[in-house]
Amino acid sequence: MDSAEDLNYPQILFQYNHGFFFSKTMFTACELGVFDLLLESEEPLSSDVIAGRLGTSTTGMERLLDTCVGLKLLRVELNSEGVFYRNTEVSNLYLAKASPKSLYHNMMYYSKTVYLCWHYLTDAVREGKNQYERAFGISSKDLFGAVYRSEEEMIKFMYGLNEIWSICGRDVIAAFDLSPFTHIYDLGGCAGGLAQECISLYPNSTVTIYDLPKVAQVAKERFIPPEEHRIMFHEGDFFTDPVPEADLYILARILHDWPDDKCMHLLEKIHKVCKPGGGVLVVETLLNEDKSGPLDTQVYSLNMLVQAEGKEKTSTEYSNLLRAAGFKEVQVKKTGKLYDAILGRK
Amino acid sequence: MDSAEDLNYPQILFQYNHGFFFSKTMFTACELGVFDLLLESEEPLSSDVIAGRLGTSTTGMERLLDTCVGLKLLRVELNSEGVFYRNTEVSNLYLAKASPKSLYHNMMYYSKTVYLCWHYLTDAVREGKNQYERAFGISSKDLFGAVYRSEEEMIKFMYGLNEIWSICGRDVIAAFDLSPFTHIYDLGGCAGGLAQECISLYPNSTVTIYDLPKVAQVAKERFIPPEEHRIMFHEGDFFTDPVPEADLYILARILHDWPDDKCMHLLEKIHKVCKPGGGVLVVETLLNEDKSGPLDTQVYSLNMLVQAEGKEKTSTEYSNLLRAAGFKEVQVKKTGKLYDAILGRK
Repeated sequence: MDSAEDLNYPQILFQYNHGFFFSKTMFTACELGVFDLLLESEEPLSSDVIAGRLGTSTTGMERLLDTCVGLKLLRVELNSEGVFYRNTEVSNLYLAKASPKSLYHNMMYYSKTVYLCWHYLTDAVREGKNQYERAFGISSKDLFGAVYRSEEEMIKFMYGLNEIWSICGRDVIAAFDLSPFTHIYDLGGCAGGLAQECISLYPNSTVTIYDLPKVAQVAKERFIPPEEHRIMFHEGDFFTDPVPEADLYILARILHDWPDDKCMHLLEKIHKVCKPGGGVLVVETLLNEDKSGPLDTQVYSLNMLVQAEGKEKTSTEYSNLLRAAGFKEVQVKKTGKLYDAILGRK
Repeated sequence: MDSAEDLNYPQILFQYNHGFFFSKTMFTACELGVFDLLLESEEPLSSDVIAGRLGTSTTGMERLLDTCVGLKLLRVELNSEGVFYRNTEVSNLYLAKASPKSLYHNMMYYSKTVYLCWHYLTDAVREGKNQYERAFGISSKDLFGAVYRSEEEMIKFMYGLNEIWSICGRDVIAAFDLSPFTHIYDLGGCAGGLAQECISLYPNSTVTIYDLPKVAQVAKERFIPPEEHRIMFHEGDFFTDPVPEADLYILARILHDWPDDKCMHLLEKIHKVCKPGGGVLVVETLLNEDKSGPLDTQVYSLNMLVQAEGKEKTSTEYSNLLRAAGFKEVQVKKTGKLYDAILGRK
């Protein structure tokens, strides 16, 4: 039953209607450097000072700041000298660029790329395919050719992904005892966020990041310190090039990108080269078995429609894929955060 | 204080991050006709049937429907024959086109126009001006030239505005006893949603909608039945053309579009021609006096930056404008919905 209140005045619809206002307010405050300035500042600042330092209009900045107060991303203090703004603890920790837990690049990726792709959600649902062509005028025949269509775009994606692992990575790597697996391949390991969690949690492990040459190159240059000898790189396309033998293969946010037949092909290929007693760790966000939620996973599955070729799945769907590829012993661990872990043993 | 939970895992940031997903999911389900089909249908339907009838992909439709379930816009029923979807009462009432309370056109206006303007929020804050040029490649020197840049766009806007008055109009017209005012001008009365509320609530009133010729023309043709002799039209630009004498002038969502000096000019002009004992009814969404909320009004004020030349104000700011223009007795009534009412008497 809908509540009588909602029937008289559909507050819930206004809330959804205004959802993109809330997203873009946060993204824009990040992009303009509001949270960075207020983190650096020793004291709360007025909207005039903030606008002056960040080179924006005062009329726009004042409203942006007040809306951030409404979103509880800023606090406001009124005294005899005027109105002054400061960060909340969450903003200091997650929105300021200088914080080790910053989500800044992820926000920029959502704001510049995902937001525009989603302008074409209706076309995506009609056609059943992603919308890089409408949003950016580029073909998506080669999916990661589209995702990494410029070095700038690729680097934004890499930073953004690492930021998500800085929040969710430890939980998925700790979900199972991976200490028996010393020789690990992270297929599509990208900027190495999960590889870093792995070697930090399991002192005997080494991790090889297997990714496209241009991704591996940037990961080496910008993300993994050269003295870190426990993280190595393997350049190639793991769908078409050989995959070497290892104890454990990590597939984090890989299977959700692709259609089931391509996932099966990859899992069978991994099963062939996997050491006996070895396994595969699938890291994904999991749908409820009846697909009734969680809401975040439901929208991520729509996002896979808009931006990729796959979808989010239930733990049974992933387990069935793993079993069909030959991984007989499959365990699922939910973390309570966005990403969960599934371990399949050979 | 931020909660310890939010500091460990910033759920609130993910919620804002995903805000545009929620908006676009609802908009797309509206646009594709999901709620219309399910209202017409005598029984719940499967995703395959819905996709077939609406001519969409099944892979996209299935995910769209499940996300609508997560948003509580649809209900799902599982039985031995499969999974079936039906509308909630709120969706029947407010999202299906056939409902007299439908918000369909308003949703389409938000989805096609406002969403794209907001892609340039950062530029709007930097520059302190609206973003029609970046979003649609059109100059906004003449604001309503940009807003009404095509007949299609104008009609979408007119339907959308009327839908908002179908929910909020009665409350603002009933906020004060307007029965002493029989000869009413609704400046910028557009499609006539408030005019209709007025004549229905006050049997002795007549309302003249004063709007641009092309708006008045479409309002006559599509929105106001020709036999409705208590609603009349006056074609012109009330900033540059004369405003005739009347008992009451309604300014609903007009002042928020314009800078204060232009508002003052208009209010002084109205004060001059207003009958003694007459007044002006300002209908706007009101900011708290310290601008700390409401959140919906804060984002609407940012929207005035992105789409117009004005901003949302506090009741004191509106009262001061009215008093400065000569309206001495000013009363404010909050309705509890999006739009409030301020009555200034000459």
